Amino acid sequence: MNKLMFLSDYMEGCHPLVLKRLNETNLESSSGYGTDIYSLAAKEKINKILNEDNDIYFVCGGTQTNFIVIDTILKGYEGVLTIDTSHIATHEAGAIEFSGHKVITLPNINGKIKAEDIDQYMTNFYNDTSYPHMVMPKMVYISYPTEYGTIYSKEELINIRKVCDKYNMYLYCDGARLAYGLKASSNELTFAEFAKFFDVFYIGGTKCGLLMGEAIVIRNNNLKTGFFTSIKMHGGLLAKGRILGIQFDTLFTDNLYFKIGTSAIECASILKEGFKKLNLVEYINSDTNQLFIILDNNKYKELIKYVDVTYFGTYDKNNTIVRFVTSWATKKEDCYKLLDILEKL
Amino acid sequence: MNKLMFLSDYMEGCHPLVLKRLNETNLESSSGYGTDIYSLAAKEKINKILNEDNDIYFVCGGTQTNFIVIDTILKGYEGVLTIDTSHIATHEAGAIEFSGHKVITLPNINGKIKAEDIDQYMTNFYNDTSYPHMVMPKMVYISYPTEYGTIYSKEELINIRKVCDKYNMYLYCDGARLAYGLKASSNELTFAEFAKFFDVFYIGGTKCGLLMGEAIVIRNNNLKTGFFTSIKMHGGLLAKGRILGIQFDTLFTDNLYFKIGTSAIECASILKEGFKKLNLVEYINSDTNQLFIILDNNKYKELIKYVDVTYFGTYDKNNTIVRFVTSWATKKEDCYKLLDILEKL
Amino acid sequence: MNKLMFLSDYMEGCHPLVLKRLNETNLESSSGYGTDIYSLAAKEKINKILNEDNDIYFVCGGTQTNFIVIDTILKGYEGVLTIDTSHIATHEAGAIEFSGHKVITLPNINGKIKAEDIDQYMTNFYNDTSYPHMVMPKMVYISYPTEYGTIYSKEELINIRKVCDKYNMYLYCDGARLAYGLKASSNELTFAEFAKFFDVFYIGGTKCGLLMGEAIVIRNNNLKTGFFTSIKMHGGLLAKGRILGIQFDTLFTDNLYFKIGTSAIECASILKEGFKKLNLVEYINSDTNQLFIILDNNKYKELIKYVDVTYFGTYDKNNTIVRFVTSWATKKEDCYKLLDILEKL
Amino acid sequence: MNKLMFLSDYMEGCHPLVLKRLNETNLESSSGYGTDIYSLAAKEKINKILNEDNDIYFVCGGTQTNFIVIDTILKGYEGVLTIDTSHIATHEAGAIEFSGHKVITLPNINGKIKAEDIDQYMTNFYNDTSYPHMVMPKMVYISYPTEYGTIYSKEELINIRKVCDKYNMYLYCDGARLAYGLKASSNELTFAEFAKFFDVFYIGGTKCGLLMGEAIVIRNNNLKTGFFTSIKMHGGLLAKGRILGIQFDTLFTDNLYFKIGTSAIECASILKEGFKKLNLVEYINSDTNQLFIILDNNKYKELIKYVDVTYFGTYDKNNTIVRFVTSWATKKEDCYKLLDILEKL
Repeated sequence: MNKLMFLSDYMEGCHPLVLKRLNETNLESSSGYGTDIYSLAAKEKINKILNEDNDIYFVCGGTQTNFIVIDTILKGYEGVLTIDTSHIATHEAGAIEFSGHKVITLPNINGKIKAEDIDQYMTNFYNDTSYPHMVMPKMVYISYPTEYGTIYSKEELINIRKVCDKYNMYLYCDGARLAYGLKASSNELTFAEFAKFFDVFYIGGTKCGLLMGEAIVIRNNNLKTGFFTSIKMHGGLLAKGRILGIQFDTLFTDNLYFKIGTSAIECASILKEGFKKLNLVEYINSDTNQLFIILDNNKYKELIKYVDVTYFGTYDKNNTIVRFVTSWATKKEDCYKLLDILEKL
Repeated sequence: MNKLMFLSDYMEGCHPLVLKRLNETNLESSSGYGTDIYSLAAKEKINKILNEDNDIYFVCGGTQTNFIVIDTILKGYEGVLTIDTSHIATHEAGAIEFSGHKVITLPNINGKIKAEDIDQYMTNFYNDTSYPHMVMPKMVYISYPTEYGTIYSKEELINIRKVCDKYNMYLYCDGARLAYGLKASSNELTFAEFAKFFDVFYIGGTKCGLLMGEAIVIRNNNLKTGFFTSIKMHGGLLAKGRILGIQFDTLFTDNLYFKIGTSAIECASILKEGFKKLNLVEYINSDTNQLFIILDNNKYKELIKYVDVTYFGTYDKNNTIVRFVTSWATKKEDCYKLLDILEKL
Repeated sequence: MNKLMFLSDYMEGCHPLVLKRLNETNLESSSGYGTDIYSLAAKEKINKILNEDNDIYFVCGGTQTNFIVIDTILKGYEGVLTIDTSHIATHEAGAIEFSGHKVITLPNINGKIKAEDIDQYMTNFYNDTSYPHMVMPKMVYISYPTEYGTIYSKEELINIRKVCDKYNMYLYCDGARLAYGLKASSNELTFAEFAKFFDVFYIGGTKCGLLMGEAIVIRNNNLKTGFFTSIKMHGGLLAKGRILGIQFDTLFTDNLYFKIGTSAIECASILKEGFKKLNLVEYINSDTNQLFIILDNNKYKELIKYVDVTYFGTYDKNNTIVRFVTSWATKKEDCYKLLDILEKL
Repeated sequence: MNKLMFLSDYMEGCHPLVLKRLNETNLESSSGYGTDIYSLAAKEKINKILNEDNDIYFVCGGTQTNFIVIDTILKGYEGVLTIDTSHIATHEAGAIEFSGHKVITLPNINGKIKAEDIDQYMTNFYNDTSYPHMVMPKMVYISYPTEYGTIYSKEELINIRKVCDKYNMYLYCDGARLAYGLKASSNELTFAEFAKFFDVFYIGGTKCGLLMGEAIVIRNNNLKTGFFTSIKMHGGLLAKGRILGIQFDTLFTDNLYFKIGTSAIECASILKEGFKKLNLVEYINSDTNQLFIILDNNKYKELIKYVDVTYFGTYDKNNTIVRFVTSWATKKEDCYKLLDILEKL
């Protein structure tokens, strides 16, 4: 019997409707580098939902997106302010530093940055008379949802935006799992309302139903110049740009992107409720597609015989933190099977 | 009626057998970042043909491949020696310089670098007492076939390798269109014989039948350390590495890669013979999948009403250089149709 | 009346003997870029004291030295491990990140890094299965003395060296104020014994009696290749290299470097003893040329009317941390004057 | 007997008046990093001559200046257009590429770039539909005088400025030997008139009488932001900024800078006239402090027994190109001695 799969949201190929379109269009000829009709259509659809006129580019992965966006926007001596657990600070092998920029970290609160902490950092920065000898923080990077499955409230985003404006900093959002954030029960924002907070954000495709692909959405007009050439320079320009265009076009046709979000969140809700009934304690209170529970070490060892999960760290000497991730590909029946297994442990 | 397509070799999706495998495997779960069984199988198949034990990595595009390979191998103060027409010197938006390395160019001879010119450059370099103030050339970059559709003879490669050894330089080959080079009528090398010349080379997938994908083959043991992390740092690591693995696994199953080469070359041969009969003069004598002819300006204007081709430059005030490219997707009947159109001009 | 000067150790020109030699040699002609007889003599003298055969280069400043050494030694995906208060992590405007490398910080203990913390970090690093996605720590950076005026004991250095060897990491020492460390009362090492701990270190001249200048000493043979060209590439090669050569030659003639250290430490000892008598509490127990005391805010405001010192931060709402720095240029009489002023506050 | 010195203009220390001021001020205390009174005074004096309000920074060397200016001004994907013989293209060890920018070269005409060639390059650039895949030329770099001792006429500068404006490019001048250019007999410009052509230029001190030091003059208001931090980040900020400030203050007191220019040019004129009388043919017609003559190989071998000169290359199998350089340190009597030696050969 195959093990149940709750390891992550990038373990399968792509949503069947996306693959269907790739099949249907495969032998068509189209122009390269994102100038094809599918890329154009996808961009139009995204802009239509947002009711904006953004510059949009499709690239292949999250680390690539982050280092392209940050390096294209920031000057050499400018840095990005974020938290210690954010992806750019940990698991991107120093891509941001490779491109020349310091990642300045503040302590995270459940995976989130606090507006007050940004404000305090910037106050201290300018109070230090030697600040011209230090990296100038010019961008705040957040993710929605965060690496801990949490999301920002509307008020939190308002406050973060305010502090960015106060110190003339850009606000950039890593939306690798955005679909799952927008469909979380605690989410207070429409996609269009969400977008308004940011100078730039990206819509993650890799973890939300595509073979690969992230859509960079540039809202701030001052930041639009030179992106195409910069993407090329960073090795991010796909010759067959249509492959990304077709996928995003499908994702934003008939609300597929949001249906994918809903489907994964429904599965996660089944798990969350089940954990509660089983008196399993959550390590972090998340309502997106990533759930974290504290599990007795012996039960954990037993569990992983039947289920693929992420070991998220040691809780204490007797307990392990386990991460369960749902996605567009998760079946409800597998959620119930998982709960059964957990009950029997 | 649709225009005939001879514009380039990346205008369609992927070879139907590749797409078939993506369909068959789509809902399987597999581990990420190239650790999946398909990636492993693909690497094994490539190594088996070469009868070697190389480190192989799959990334998404050519510019990305070049800047990852060059930046990972070279130290900061080392540069890469190539010709003025090579891709890294022209159409990569400065990716090599972005990663910190100078691209030093010599004049091309039909798109090729000459061993004698490398030798002369290095002799002059070391004769200049101020050479420690100059970028140290540490790698020679060639492409096979070249941007002009030409290929190196065995003797030329032997000489280039010799001069690299003489000056302790690495030899790197951009194989974006390698399949078409290995099947050219003038090619003297098997795939395995070809590989032996290089410290590193890449097997192009994007232009040879894949949705996207290039296989970096690292032969020199001294250069193997750190590549995985370096690829990640350069934004080149695909989360769903299987997408590249499945494609390359298919490409090296039942000789598909070489069949794709043969098919495109057969189409090119039909064109080449046809051009001769029509007394159309070739700008460069190529026998790969790129052909260049000199065409009267008025005929060119008429031609492009019916056929998508590449404008390659002005030959003289009355004539234009036109590039025709065939690929795995080119149909022989379209080649005959093209010749008909050319005859009627 | 002029204010007393205890602000820092780079407020004057250079030691009179150094200036004397610059005067004596000014109209001599000599070859450029460090090939002059004075640079050669200076290197010989340093190597003689160390009884080693190191490669030595002279450059103009500390930040320049750090980013040249770190970037020349590390590969792109490798990072440097240090503490949160170290100069490269704070006041170098991101120079290390500009050159492409992540500065990974551990908490400081009185300005020092702990061998145990390095060991723990590396253990965690390799225990994390995703470590190939993270920056590889390949160098440990310490300063001697530290930014807090403290120095490492022999045992601490032995342990740090051991952990570096255990994890195959280079150990690099920033010796901006080395002369003052070697002459501290708690120092257990001769200059030659000190050197043996490091793969590379630098002998600071700017803060120890020169107009400017730091001597990079490369002990590890594997790290010697390419440094000259790399220095040039980083903008660190002085045309009139003799200016640095003459200064370092003088510094290592008749033990001037060590006399400078002794002189500043004698002044610091007068202050330290005086502080004790005045019941002024030290913020950190330092015995080098930087002393830190906790001073009542009102007294601090009065003090700075008569003395130039460094405001080092707020201790609590009533008290300020004040830094006093002595140097080769400090006069003993000024130390007594300072103590008088403090007594009268 | 010592050999006569015509090797280059950076073989001695500094002009005696400069050294005198360093002596006089040596034991004064002053604030660091260029905030001292001498640096401020020097900047005021330069701005007063130019009758402008420029931002001015002092750094230590030419390569350092070039890579700081170019990297601070240009965005990542932008490159600098210059000629094949310019310093940034040859003898800076790839510093510009290290900081991420491509150096695009056009053929030189006697060491100079032609406005028409820039125009042609930019016309071709924008005519190439794939230009967004190429490095965007955003700055033109010239030197005055050039590496061949030549200077631009007023008309040439007007035309270069025009073509820069036409294509929205910055114009930057490397003034390493500016004093010698402004005093050349063919020079048509006052210092203030010269400055008006450029967005940024630098006043070279190293080759014009200082121990070291170049003054970056930023005229374009849009380019002033962030320079201080960027200089620090590039390792170019001197702790004892006064050392540069005092030197430049002296250089722009009582016209010393221009007197230095005049003195070197007078020596060069003696040589130029003497060469003519001796029927020695100039390789390039220069009237600055660098002269190039074509000399019989045997005479060259004899000459260098008595005189230090620069071997500038092979003219033909019988003749060598020899460079003679004068400076502030050259004595007229040595010029006559050199002519005597040449006559006797």
